[in-house]
Amino acid sequence: MGLFSKDIKTMNDLFVHQLQDIYYAEKQLVKALPKMAEKATEPQLKQGFLTHLDETRTHVQRLEQVFGMVGAEVKSVDCPAIDGIIKEANDTAGEVEDKKVLDAALINAAQAAEHYEIARYGSLIAWARQFGRNDAAGVLQKTLDEEKATDRKLTTLAEGKVNLRAAS
Amino acid sequence: MGLFSKDIKTMNDLFVHQLQDIYYAEKQLVKALPKMAEKATEPQLKQGFLTHLDETRTHVQRLEQVFGMVGAEVKSVDCPAIDGIIKEANDTAGEVEDKKVLDAALINAAQAAEHYEIARYGSLIAWARQFGRNDAAGVLQKTLDEEKATDRKLTTLAEGKVNLRAAS
Repeated sequence: MGLFSKDIKTMNDLFVHQLQDIYYAEKQLVKALPKMAEKATEPQLKQGFLTHLDETRTHVQRLEQVFGMVGAEVKSVDCPAIDGIIKEANDTAGEVEDKKVLDAALINAAQAAEHYEIARYGSLIAWARQFGRNDAAGVLQKTLDEEKATDRKLTTLAEGKVNLRAAS
Repeated sequence: MGLFSKDIKTMNDLFVHQLQDIYYAEKQLVKALPKMAEKATEPQLKQGFLTHLDETRTHVQRLEQVFGMVGAEVKSVDCPAIDGIIKEANDTAGEVEDKKVLDAALINAAQAAEHYEIARYGSLIAWARQFGRNDAAGVLQKTLDEEKATDRKLTTLAEGKVNLRAAS
């Protein structure tokens, strides 16, 4: 991005910019998820983070596919939002003494990341459809469906098990 | 938060910490929303940001009420996530040349903030219910409902009007 010029001139530029943003975010999550799995105590939560790590690697590949579909260079831009979400997750986790409470904090942190992605993919899909790029929208929709499913699984695990253990 | 001790020992500590986090976030949004309204061109979007500013002021007051209900001091902790979301919104908006494309970028930014809040309030409500604090859960639920309604309104405005104008 230029320091002295405004680089986003069209909706296509905005689309590519936000693709670069979520590409950075997904790659940061590939680094963060193994650490979250390591910190988790509840076996289902630990496994859930590892399963979502595999999905996240696929999300990175799907974004590379979408860059190709729209003829844009595969690259990332800094995404202060995901950096902030991950920093906050680490800060909070570092403050938690009890392992069971830490599991609840980890779910809370992961859901903030999921919701960030849900917001971003939602816009990207709407824009792609509007450009008539249903091929790109379809690829992005698969990822959005997985992010929403992960968010629902985290809620079920929190409300059905982790919060109860943490409060006991 | 202590640098040399782990301050979150119980689920109640985690609940209060996350109340302080979203309290900070809501107050940052009270500062950010007038600037977003100023940048917006589409009259419905401009008005939507101002309406949500009023709601956000109420969300701050509701949080103060919940602090009181659970006997915790009204205070905020830094929330790197909302700082990152707001920084990213400003960075991206600063790169956009076309006013109509800027409206689409502003909606995209606002939806990232809404989703952050949806994730946070969702956890707070689940935790409050588990503590048997249905009074606090009820107050927080009112805000969650408004955040979700705002997110839906932004989607409708983007898909029904703003994205079409921006691509024309």
